[in-house]
Amino acid sequence: MNTQPLMTPVSQEETNDLGFGSVVARESQRRLLNRNGSFNVSRTGLGLMSSLSPYQAVLTMSWRKFFAMTLLFYLGTNVLFATAYLLCGPGSLAVSAQLGIKNHFLLCFFFSVHTLATIGYGTISPVGLAANTIVTIESFVGLFSIALGTSLLFARFSRPTTKILFSNYAVIAPYHGLTAFEFRITNARRNQIIELEAQVLLARFEDVNGRKLRRFHRLSLERPGVTFFPLSWTIVHPIDESSPLFGLSAEDLRATKAEFLILITGFDETFAQTVYTRSSYLFEEIVWNARFTDIFNHPTDDGLLTIDVRKLHLLERLETKTQSER
Amino acid sequence: MNTQPLMTPVSQEETNDLGFGSVVARESQRRLLNRNGSFNVSRTGLGLMSSLSPYQAVLTMSWRKFFAMTLLFYLGTNVLFATAYLLCGPGSLAVSAQLGIKNHFLLCFFFSVHTLATIGYGTISPVGLAANTIVTIESFVGLFSIALGTSLLFARFSRPTTKILFSNYAVIAPYHGLTAFEFRITNARRNQIIELEAQVLLARFEDVNGRKLRRFHRLSLERPGVTFFPLSWTIVHPIDESSPLFGLSAEDLRATKAEFLILITGFDETFAQTVYTRSSYLFEEIVWNARFTDIFNHPTDDGLLTIDVRKLHLLERLETKTQSER
Amino acid sequence: MNTQPLMTPVSQEETNDLGFGSVVARESQRRLLNRNGSFNVSRTGLGLMSSLSPYQAVLTMSWRKFFAMTLLFYLGTNVLFATAYLLCGPGSLAVSAQLGIKNHFLLCFFFSVHTLATIGYGTISPVGLAANTIVTIESFVGLFSIALGTSLLFARFSRPTTKILFSNYAVIAPYHGLTAFEFRITNARRNQIIELEAQVLLARFEDVNGRKLRRFHRLSLERPGVTFFPLSWTIVHPIDESSPLFGLSAEDLRATKAEFLILITGFDETFAQTVYTRSSYLFEEIVWNARFTDIFNHPTDDGLLTIDVRKLHLLERLETKTQSER
Amino acid sequence: MNTQPLMTPVSQEETNDLGFGSVVARESQRRLLNRNGSFNVSRTGLGLMSSLSPYQAVLTMSWRKFFAMTLLFYLGTNVLFATAYLLCGPGSLAVSAQLGIKNHFLLCFFFSVHTLATIGYGTISPVGLAANTIVTIESFVGLFSIALGTSLLFARFSRPTTKILFSNYAVIAPYHGLTAFEFRITNARRNQIIELEAQVLLARFEDVNGRKLRRFHRLSLERPGVTFFPLSWTIVHPIDESSPLFGLSAEDLRATKAEFLILITGFDETFAQTVYTRSSYLFEEIVWNARFTDIFNHPTDDGLLTIDVRKLHLLERLETKTQSER
Repeated sequence: MNTQPLMTPVSQEETNDLGFGSVVARESQRRLLNRNGSFNVSRTGLGLMSSLSPYQAVLTMSWRKFFAMTLLFYLGTNVLFATAYLLCGPGSLAVSAQLGIKNHFLLCFFFSVHTLATIGYGTISPVGLAANTIVTIESFVGLFSIALGTSLLFARFSRPTTKILFSNYAVIAPYHGLTAFEFRITNARRNQIIELEAQVLLARFEDVNGRKLRRFHRLSLERPGVTFFPLSWTIVHPIDESSPLFGLSAEDLRATKAEFLILITGFDETFAQTVYTRSSYLFEEIVWNARFTDIFNHPTDDGLLTIDVRKLHLLERLETKTQSER
Repeated sequence: MNTQPLMTPVSQEETNDLGFGSVVARESQRRLLNRNGSFNVSRTGLGLMSSLSPYQAVLTMSWRKFFAMTLLFYLGTNVLFATAYLLCGPGSLAVSAQLGIKNHFLLCFFFSVHTLATIGYGTISPVGLAANTIVTIESFVGLFSIALGTSLLFARFSRPTTKILFSNYAVIAPYHGLTAFEFRITNARRNQIIELEAQVLLARFEDVNGRKLRRFHRLSLERPGVTFFPLSWTIVHPIDESSPLFGLSAEDLRATKAEFLILITGFDETFAQTVYTRSSYLFEEIVWNARFTDIFNHPTDDGLLTIDVRKLHLLERLETKTQSER
Repeated sequence: MNTQPLMTPVSQEETNDLGFGSVVARESQRRLLNRNGSFNVSRTGLGLMSSLSPYQAVLTMSWRKFFAMTLLFYLGTNVLFATAYLLCGPGSLAVSAQLGIKNHFLLCFFFSVHTLATIGYGTISPVGLAANTIVTIESFVGLFSIALGTSLLFARFSRPTTKILFSNYAVIAPYHGLTAFEFRITNARRNQIIELEAQVLLARFEDVNGRKLRRFHRLSLERPGVTFFPLSWTIVHPIDESSPLFGLSAEDLRATKAEFLILITGFDETFAQTVYTRSSYLFEEIVWNARFTDIFNHPTDDGLLTIDVRKLHLLERLETKTQSER
Repeated sequence: MNTQPLMTPVSQEETNDLGFGSVVARESQRRLLNRNGSFNVSRTGLGLMSSLSPYQAVLTMSWRKFFAMTLLFYLGTNVLFATAYLLCGPGSLAVSAQLGIKNHFLLCFFFSVHTLATIGYGTISPVGLAANTIVTIESFVGLFSIALGTSLLFARFSRPTTKILFSNYAVIAPYHGLTAFEFRITNARRNQIIELEAQVLLARFEDVNGRKLRRFHRLSLERPGVTFFPLSWTIVHPIDESSPLFGLSAEDLRATKAEFLILITGFDETFAQTVYTRSSYLFEEIVWNARFTDIFNHPTDDGLLTIDVRKLHLLERLETKTQSER
């Protein structure tokens, strides 16, 4: 049998990847994961409906944007129905003597507001079949929209909003007579996350049969998980002889475009749901021969143990004899 | 003890099935799973309430249908209450001089709209005990329906809408010196699915003690799972000597009505829920000696890796010496 | 050390129970689990709030009851506020000439309806500070109640309504040269449950140091789980020499008050949630030397495989030489 | 390489902690977990938005507080819009002759109520562009707030409200010829929790290289889990030779500030969700040589087994020869 060159290496390499596929391994020179955990790849051809994916968008947009969007929808719908009432002609709305609005479009607009929001003062009221029919439609649209808005609002609320904060830099520094790769995380929210587990993978370009291919290595952790996570957690990969980082310098990492992919899983107590967080450190986000500054506030007056989340990113440079600095 | 023939084989065969039962294994000549993952079987006698299963239906119908259904419900309820007001007699509604609607039923209908949607302009208003009592009922129905509609709307939103796209055809083709059964999947939505796992089972008719019975075989996969799924995933079953496909031709698969049952599980990040997807490939949906066309767009100008989802189904025919084509 | 008699045996026996505690094991002569899966025990002293547990009740009551409850709440609230308006005195409501309601309480009641449901025709309207203040309160109560009703309605909808139907009787009958304990289940709803697993435990009274104590035995199953559950599933415990049922007669089961506790778990696809169902068969719900009647409709005209759920409970008596009937 | 003293011990000790970090292990003299399961630590510097964490607060506040908060929001919003209408000048609202309210601010306030709650009697109505524009804004705010309130209400309802009751004291007492550490739990709600599992950890200060450090020890349990939890469960750690409690007296526990950390997990049937509960017993919450009073009501007239939850905390002192009392 004659096997095609493209097909063969794909699957073989895949056994060592995370689902990015072999083309990523070969071609992309970019980082695989962005700091915020999103993938640095894209899919085209998903079609209009999937591309728009309105629900996904509505779920994940900022609250400010969500509020603006609903306000816009509200005003837009009113403008639309105002136009419809306008098209019914001048006699289609009965107006109380005191209303004080002369502009016919504004009249129609405010009548639409009274109707869409189901207020119905009666100071403006529909006259004739056309206007009353539009009222029937608008009231349905109003009710459906209120239901829709409530649903979307709750859909936003019901999603776990876990936010794990990663230290801006990871360090590679002396540790217990060895060297270790370390980074630090904390919970940016007040909720409790428990049963945390971490996976760290090193992706770098290696020579495979004379070609530069990206390979993936799982890094063993000193503690792959913690039961509780009330404060902060420093995740440590000791660089012993079995580590793929053993003997590498900062320059080696740069030359092989090394990237550390992080996957954190835990159980969010408020939402009673399993949550996943991703991030990554590129070679240039590693600080050599530094350590994380103590994150605790001590002593505290009342003996209560507290950390200062703002210190999460602070580093202190270590003085060493043998230095392979960044 | 004397055991009955029907009973005995059932259980023995079941140890090798997936929950379809031995009768399926023996009798049904149809495919077990449809392409969309639904089961090709049915249950009767579920009773009216279960048969109607309105909630299930409302949850899974299309958005267009859902919108039409609620609109119909809205209009229908208004017609119902309009009729009730009509039956109260001509004096039961007070009408403002300017309303411009002469038809009494239409008057009743528009009054019902004003009431059900809780607008209440007051240009039509209830007169007397009967009409006011009906208003009391209608306002309750209105509020309950709005609550119901909102609930159903949200129930639809809160369900994971994961949609895994399967390649139209699976292939059996040379692969690393062996042959392999392969198909390709991608995520048809913009959300991320992680921790994907695949199970592939071969169902085919075999001679068991002189009877043609359907048997199930689990196929070993090169990679049973991927951590991330940002692009596409080609699932590969290498046909080595331990494979139940070893040595079989396209004609053999046709003769035994071979069907490949697929079960994909993963974790939907947007909904923070585990999701399941099923599909199947029947013998006639296998293409022999073909490979999947490269799904990536290369090179991309900005170095960003992209796939074109529309290429998911594309195949390229391979030229081989020993051919056992479809 | 001198250990107290009550304390000691409790813990020792517990190692063999399911969480019922040793007193259940010793004292209760009743069945442990009812057919519908509820526990045949109760807890007192939970306190008023826990005892009432209104949310739990609202979630699990029938739809008819739920509808009646909300209607009652609606009418009751209106009666309450009608009384409040009544207490404001005769001049507190302005009534349009055409309203046609003379009874002052009815006027107040209908005004309350207009207000609580936020209709506000204006044909009855509040006069003075007292009435307007009550309107302010009632409108808040109205909005809060609508929100509450919508929430409760959705809370009902969002609960998995999985309903597994158990055959009315289990059978103990010849099976593959052995005897087996068997019962049959099907899904009473149209949704799909997958990854089903079954646990079956035998509870019976045994002589332990001269005392009759209830002991629990896990029964091994021919198939502890099925991947799919589109039709029905017959759960089979073969009574081989390792079975605690080996050599027992119907009379033995009656004498030891044998009870078979069933726990079924699965994944409900519609709700994307894990679901649990319990049931039990008491010794008197076992039929000896019978088999389940074929549940399938064959042949079907279109080759589609169907089962008739109404046949789930049907049994056929077997003729045997050595009979140990019920 | 020269390693810094602070960094080194941190990680080494962490391998033996639960995620509290080594500083907790060294410095904090306080209990780690409060009785209600909250952590006895705090994080500062989370920033305003995270600190306020309004959603978390709204989800977990008492129902009384939640109701008060929404009422306040309702009144506050009406006051706000009343002020806005007031600022539009005296002619901006048309008032029906019968309204009976002279105070202009009150007029504005009640008009706001009619509008925000979408009642719209029409007895007060907006005049001119300014007032009508504010009506447009207020109606949007009203609709959005109703949607928000409904969402928050449901978010509160949809959270599992599991409440496991822990006995006020744990006991260390003779047990089967050994001694055992025991505590008792029951479900304080009427819902069923199943598949319960317990983890118990002992935290105490120990001499490590001449320093007093807090160390964590997992205690083996007689039964780490129960399938059902209809009544109560006594969790027992037998103090055999392998136990870190072996040979310790009450004074030893006090001197080492011993704390028993408890983590209970289970599956809440009503919510179909996994739930976690934490608690802890400090050395001074241990009663030596006592046993838990029988929690069952016996005999019951109808043979139904019942426990009295109020007896959960009751202890009976044991008489022993060798006594190491508290």
